[in-house]
Parts: sequence; structure tokens; C-alpha cells
Amino acid sequence: MSGKHILILGGHGFIGSHLTVALVAGGARVRVLDRAGGVPTAPVRGVDYRVAEFGDLATLAEALADIDLVIHLISTTVPGTANLDPVADIEGNLIGTVRLLQKMKEVGVGQLLFLSSGGTVYGDTDAVPIPEQHPLEPLSSYGIVKVAIEHYIGMHARQHGMRSLILRVSNPYGPRQGHLGVQGVIGTFFQRLRAGDPIKIWGDGQSVRDYLYIDDLTDCICTAIHREVSGVFNVGSGRGTSLIELLAIVARVTGSAPEVEFQPARGFDVRKVVLDITKARTTLGWTPQVGLPEGCQRYWDWLRRANVT
Amino acid sequence: MSGKHILILGGHGFIGSHLTVALVAGGARVRVLDRAGGVPTAPVRGVDYRVAEFGDLATLAEALADIDLVIHLISTTVPGTANLDPVADIEGNLIGTVRLLQKMKEVGVGQLLFLSSGGTVYGDTDAVPIPEQHPLEPLSSYGIVKVAIEHYIGMHARQHGMRSLILRVSNPYGPRQGHLGVQGVIGTFFQRLRAGDPIKIWGDGQSVRDYLYIDDLTDCICTAIHREVSGVFNVGSGRGTSLIELLAIVARVTGSAPEVEFQPARGFDVRKVVLDITKARTTLGWTPQVGLPEGCQRYWDWLRRANVT
Repeated sequence: MSGKHILILGGHGFIGSHLTVALVAGGARVRVLDRAGGVPTAPVRGVDYRVAEFGDLATLAEALADIDLVIHLISTTVPGTANLDPVADIEGNLIGTVRLLQKMKEVGVGQLLFLSSGGTVYGDTDAVPIPEQHPLEPLSSYGIVKVAIEHYIGMHARQHGMRSLILRVSNPYGPRQGHLGVQGVIGTFFQRLRAGDPIKIWGDGQSVRDYLYIDDLTDCICTAIHREVSGVFNVGSGRGTSLIELLAIVARVTGSAPEVEFQPARGFDVRKVVLDITKARTTLGWTPQVGLPEGCQRYWDWLRRANVT
Repeated sequence: MSGKHILILGGHGFIGSHLTVALVAGGARVRVLDRAGGVPTAPVRGVDYRVAEFGDLATLAEALADIDLVIHLISTTVPGTANLDPVADIEGNLIGTVRLLQKMKEVGVGQLLFLSSGGTVYGDTDAVPIPEQHPLEPLSSYGIVKVAIEHYIGMHARQHGMRSLILRVSNPYGPRQGHLGVQGVIGTFFQRLRAGDPIKIWGDGQSVRDYLYIDDLTDCICTAIHREVSGVFNVGSGRGTSLIELLAIVARVTGSAPEVEFQPARGFDVRKVVLDITKARTTLGWTPQVGLPEGCQRYWDWLRRANVT
């Protein structure tokens, strides 16, 4: 990875800000393109930060100059809200990514890493854990658009010789996530508990997710870049945790009993997602290191230290 | 089907014009919405023809009034050209269909029949024949957009109780198809041969397709509407024919030996598509009646009779 010139699209976000630190530490030259705002964190020394909307093609083209690899983390929507305006989801994310692919070809950038959504692309399945070759049957606009993006990346790679790596990430969590409460149930739980607000759960609390600590995710991405792999990989912990189990962990970590409000289930939420990470383990030699209780403790420590409000 | 009020979107096209005749004959009340132009054929008595672009939402909303079932046949692109401008493909077809679904919900139309593409949604597979549950791995923009449309229809059906029927049609052919030479190899072959032009084949002529005569397709659609089924069905002949075999049939039917020019294969063409039509056979009690030699003969008879140029 050392010396590689990498453009991170969406580098001001939760994943992007952690990844910027990890890539620079690994010896990469990093440029970040993102909209204004984002996670409040100190700039990383040596990083070339640029600010633009995803649809600003002129600035995007400039940012692609001399880049070896684009890491595409931009999402103009989140899983819970994309359904409310699917046209905006398609325009912002799908057309935005197709235009990115066209610009990459024009400028001559030959490598793309895209973070897809392991939690939504497979849909509601009884497969536990879910392997990469499972049919893609998304229930939500968020997942439908991610699948279409994966397909366009595959088409572009075949037609223009681009090397592509698609990581279907489960539910990443960790410091700096979820200030708005629209993304990341762990951040939301801890922050509501700290504020003394009741915790809302849609459904009966039995829905199972695969939570991955942010450092394990950035470690996986750095390893994949270092090994120059391509293809599609699930990236998760490989373990399932229900919301009820997660609540118990949160209670233990904070030493307090959360007040819970159960709300009707949302139609686009799938019941259970646990990713089969055998391919990432064997191909990359990567294994998640941070268990959920340990990761929750780290998140809680950060939350209190950072005094996030 | 008798008495049902049906809106055909794309009723001026090859499939739409045949379907209009068949539905009226079956006792349905039919309204047609399409752009200006289309297949030159006489209007069908009793049909309410309206002209508008797919993106004209006001006219679309008016056309949806009092409709029981929408049959969505509109495609603003064709398989061979969609890749040239994927953004236009997404905007015209995918966003157009999402807006249609939204309008159907607003107006209160509860049934949709969509013609998807059996030839492109599955991608390049060794499965022969291909069943409906095969993973969807489209290689072309045309197929990627069809898959995304299927997913949005499924989402809309689950969330709003709409009844949806998706027919993944193979390669339909028959009278009135393919004046422009961009869609339908059978029409193109016969018309070039009649004009004394050489026949162009991309690749080595071994690519296999599943050709379905138009009357068998309209028969399948009418049966499915009559039986009020929903879900996803492959609709094809269930038989594979290579281009070389097709050429031999064309030569027999016309009594002349075509001159052939072989051209390099196109990256987005799949090698072999034969649909498994077991589900349509058993659920609908439908079976294709017109074999390829017979269908080609009928096409050739029509072509000479109609004196198409």
C-alpha cells in the first residue's frame, strides 16, 4: 500500500475518517473528497482535503488526477430514509456512481473499492450465515440501489479492464458514529441512554445483526488494498446478535438498565443478517479482533471522553 | 379478463400492438398510452388511445383513472444501445417506473404487469434452461435496470399491497417487429435478406437464444391476467437455437442462401439463454404453440404481404 495514491470519496464520514487515519499510517498518499460538514475531527497531517458535492463532476475530475485507487464511501441516503424518496436515492447514489465510473475511465483511474451493504443486498433470507453467492433480493431502496451499483461496477470492470473490489459490510460501529441517530443502532442506544432518553426498538427485539468494530473494518480494507485483491467479499464479524442481547451488553457496559419503548416493525427491515466471512478470512488472512462487549466498552469510553452531545 | 379496464403503457410498440388486439378480443376495456410514432398499424376499435412521453406525469395520472391493471411495456432503450448511455437508461426506465409506481399508489391502481427481460437479467450462466430462482447477474445496463425495476416493483407490492406480475420474456418475434434493425434478430435477418444486404453476426454464430412467437406471448399474458396470478414467471419457448441454426431456417423459409459477415463479439452479449418455462406451464396451463420454422414462415409471409421497407 505504501506510496499508493488513494482518493477517498466520503472521507469526512464515520468510516472515511477512520480509514483516512489508517491509510496514512500504512504509508499511502491520501486525498479526501467530501461535502462540507461531516464528522468533527482534526484533519490528518499530509492529507489533501477537498470539498464538493458528489454531483460536482468538474471537481471530481480534478480530484481523480494522479490517483491509483478510488475508495467510494459516499452515500447520499441512509437505510432508514432512502425509501421515503427512492428517486433521490437513484439520482444521488446510482447515477452519481455511474458518472464516477465514466469519469474514472476518462481520467484513466484503474482501481475502485466500493463499500456495499451486507445488511440490505441479500434481503430477507433464512441463510445463516449468508455467503457472497447468495441471490441478491433487496427489500429496500437502499439495498436495491447498492445492488444496481454493484452491477454497474461489474459491467465497467469487464468492459474497461478496471480492477474492482466490492466489500459488503455488515453493521460497522465505533467512535464518531451516529450523531444524528439515523445510522448505527449501537451509537443510538448509548447516546440515548446517556441523555436519559428511552431506547426505541422497532419490532420485538429479536432482529439479528452482525456488528463489526470500526478498527476491524479499516484493517480489512487496508489488508485488501495491500494484497491487491479484487472481487466481492462479505465483511462482518460472522456472528449474530439480537437487539435484546445488544441491550444487555449496553446495560452491562454502562451499569444502568435502559428504558425501552417497543415500536411496530418497519416493512423494509430484514429479520436476520449474519455474514459468512469465510472468503475474507481465507483470501485476505483477515480475522475480526474486537468482540462486541469490548467494542461497546470502547465506544462508551469514547462517548464519555469526547463529551459528545 | 372480461370487463377488466386495462392501461397498456407502450401500446404502440411491437408487443403492445399485438397485445391490444388480443386483450380487446378477450373482452377487456383497453386504454393505450404511448409516445407518438410506433408501429404503423390500424387503431383497434373501442380502444382509448392517448399520446404522451413516459415522463409526462400529469397525462400518466389522467390515464390511470378507473384502471384495474397497468401493463407496463415501455422501454426507452434497447439492449444493444442502453450501454452507450446508462444514465439515460436509468433516468428514462428506472426513475420512470418508480414514478409510475408512486402515481399508481396515489390514484389507487392495485395491479401491475411488467415485462422484464429473460435474455439479460440472468447474465452469462451455464444453467440450461434457466429457472426463475437463478441469481440475477446482468452484464448490461439494459439488464441491470430491468433487475432494479423488478426489485422496486417487489418493494412496492410488499409495502402497499399492490398485486404484481413480472414476466421475464425471452426473445419475442413476429410481424411488425424490428423496422429499425436494433431489436429482434429474426426481423433483422429477414429484412436484410429481402433487401439483398449481407447479414451481420456478432461473434461466431454459436450464441443461443430462446425465440418466442408473438402470438404465444400474448396468449401467455392473456392467460395470466385471466387467472389473476402474481409473482415472477419466465416466458419463452424453452428451446435454444443458435444463430447458425436460425440462419439455416431463414434460408429454408426464403429459399435463398444469405450472405453472412461475421463481426467481433460484443462484451455485453451473453452466450446462451434458454428459459425454464416449467412454472408458466404448470401454473398457467400455458404452452407455446408456434415452433420456430412455423413462426419464421409466418413472419416472412407477413413481410412480403405488408411490403415493408
